[in-house]
Amino acid sequence: MKARVHVMLKSGVLDPQGEAIHHALDSLGFTGVTGVRQGKVIELELDATDADKAGESVREMCEKLLANTVIESYEIEIE
Amino acid sequence: MKARVHVMLKSGVLDPQGEAIHHALDSLGFTGVTGVRQGKVIELELDATDADKAGESVREMCEKLLANTVIESYEIEIE
Repeated sequence: MKARVHVMLKSGVLDPQGEAIHHALDSLGFTGVTGVRQGKVIELELDATDADKAGESVREMCEKLLANTVIESYEIEIE
Repeated sequence: MKARVHVMLKSGVLDPQGEAIHHALDSLGFTGVTGVRQGKVIELELDATDADKAGESVREMCEKLLANTVIESYEIEIE
């Protein structure tokens, strides 16, 4: 079973990487971009066969390690 | 219009960040994980209203800036 976790900075938190990408896109002539946020994606291969249990386990991984929940939010997709 | 770009290292390319996460998860007692890959996710806010044109423009951004296509692959989602 596969899980994909998206970790993004919460909306109030300054994102200098996203800003840098935005400026770089502007300089390259991509002017139709009004905002850029950069985050992490983590793909996990899991032994689990039960999607609910896998989801719960991945949620725990996020809380303990994968995301800094003070400034980051996360989304879990189980495939 | 929003676009989400996933940039992952290609499968043959060593992923030390993913390995580090895998080891850390093991030490925390999450033993059911058989593989971890880490990548980037970039969320773009676009002026464009036509999904096809937006997709084409984002593909160009990936080729020119967002991904290093020698070692990274990318996926585009237009919302």
